[in-house]
Amino acid sequence: MDAIITLDIGGTNTRCALFHTEKDDPVSIEKVNTSVNNEPAINRIIEVVEKSWPKDRKVVGIAAAAPGSIDVIKNEVILAPNIAGWQDYPLGEILEKHFNTKVLVNNDARMAAVGEWKRGAGRGHNDILYYTVSTGLGGGVITGGHILQGSRGIATEVGHIVLDDNGPLCGCGKAGHFESYSSGTGIQHHVERKIKEGAATILKTAAPSSREIAEAAKAGDELALEAFEIGGYYMGIAVSNYLHIFNPTCVIFGGGVTLSFDLIMPSFRASLEKHVLNPLYLKDLKIALAELGDNAGLIGTYEYMKQNV
Amino acid sequence: MDAIITLDIGGTNTRCALFHTEKDDPVSIEKVNTSVNNEPAINRIIEVVEKSWPKDRKVVGIAAAAPGSIDVIKNEVILAPNIAGWQDYPLGEILEKHFNTKVLVNNDARMAAVGEWKRGAGRGHNDILYYTVSTGLGGGVITGGHILQGSRGIATEVGHIVLDDNGPLCGCGKAGHFESYSSGTGIQHHVERKIKEGAATILKTAAPSSREIAEAAKAGDELALEAFEIGGYYMGIAVSNYLHIFNPTCVIFGGGVTLSFDLIMPSFRASLEKHVLNPLYLKDLKIALAELGDNAGLIGTYEYMKQNV
Repeated sequence: MDAIITLDIGGTNTRCALFHTEKDDPVSIEKVNTSVNNEPAINRIIEVVEKSWPKDRKVVGIAAAAPGSIDVIKNEVILAPNIAGWQDYPLGEILEKHFNTKVLVNNDARMAAVGEWKRGAGRGHNDILYYTVSTGLGGGVITGGHILQGSRGIATEVGHIVLDDNGPLCGCGKAGHFESYSSGTGIQHHVERKIKEGAATILKTAAPSSREIAEAAKAGDELALEAFEIGGYYMGIAVSNYLHIFNPTCVIFGGGVTLSFDLIMPSFRASLEKHVLNPLYLKDLKIALAELGDNAGLIGTYEYMKQNV
Repeated sequence: MDAIITLDIGGTNTRCALFHTEKDDPVSIEKVNTSVNNEPAINRIIEVVEKSWPKDRKVVGIAAAAPGSIDVIKNEVILAPNIAGWQDYPLGEILEKHFNTKVLVNNDARMAAVGEWKRGAGRGHNDILYYTVSTGLGGGVITGGHILQGSRGIATEVGHIVLDDNGPLCGCGKAGHFESYSSGTGIQHHVERKIKEGAATILKTAAPSSREIAEAAKAGDELALEAFEIGGYYMGIAVSNYLHIFNPTCVIFGGGVTLSFDLIMPSFRASLEKHVLNPLYLKDLKIALAELGDNAGLIGTYEYMKQNV
């Protein structure tokens, strides 16, 4: 019997799952710190794969999801800003040589999209937009039953489209991106700017966390409410753009900011209805929260490997 | 031997081509006015197809490209604003019943994209952005060797993405779309607004045509030059958005405004380089003008029918 091992590599933690190929769900999940005491991340990754390795099965492939730009042809990390030394980093080749099995590497948000498509909120749909809204804003797209990757694999940088050329600075250094309005960081930066300008608020610090802002909003703080409202408004602009581009049947939101989605949803929906070219784009459109939580990436890479093994 | 008939239906003219399926190029092309004296367009369309019908071959399919939103599952025109009465119009069914052969209907700009992909500037590429820049701004996308259509076929409304929520009005009634900056109409409207504001110009009328603006620009008129420069600047923003979304290897521009592309290209290229997330998106990227001219739609629908027959 065959097995597949998948990795969801993050800046802080790496999770590793063992799958038996006749089953949908992982047999085991291991979690380690990606880097301890500046040790190269690859050491911990190899260690956790070895720990997950089955005794009585053939591993037909290892599939890794990593944060950042991935060359899916070469299975190389082009740049993962949160992992030291991972620039033009041949992760696939290193794992392939060490474990002597097929290795695939892909972007973590795209793999979460595949997970939600195959086993989560997108089941049964062929045209899906998936957004992960947390510190940053990433995602993946399924179109006509295909995973959109682009020529090298650096497609679906969905957070990095300009919504206003004179807008606030994005984490990437450019201005007015979707991410700079609607990510957790975007919401925080709005509050910080307004506090600097002297806005009234019950928030006590000059740079409150997303959680503090959400709590203030729930307590009725106007500045905090406004920050989520603006995030939702621009999310409506961005998603309407994407509806015009992709005409999907399903839009899925994952990531930490979805915990505060009751604060975002009213302005998001109003803005979506305002900006959409034609009500047809909203007809029969499912808008849903992600269902697989932390396991979306592990399950997505498993499904991705099964398609390619 | 088999034959395929294709139609490129426009608001003013309709062109009809006969193809022998063992050949790439049309055997004949007929052209008629789409509507004369308020006669329904379908009469002229049926007439021109009958005229093109081969005497000694079996017609295995008719493929029609039409302007507007097309339901590619039902082969119905959802809305073609330039053709009277074409709302929820079952063009495919009507032609199928009349000619007793398979009929496909799709969007004209998307079919031109397919033409350029298979036989024009996009040959050999699997990931292509195609823009037709004329009165409006439409296009099509090939991703991973697939034609992007969306769930119903109303995807790739590429001109209708918001670049600035407070921007100028678009032909569709929304604000700040790519089309409202970079189409021929967008460029005209910029000049009209500035003339109203009292800007100095050699242009003699309050609402000059695209051609007059291009001539004024070539004569050094600052307002005319500015209009093309702004069109190019926003085109750079929009195309960088699309590079981040699709990571293509080829970007193709067609349509009448490409006749003035020497006026647009400098600001387009500078803006593209400014807005792109990473130079990798521009590496090995072919940026080219369309090669098939008026025949792109007729050839694209032929290739589309061959894929689906």
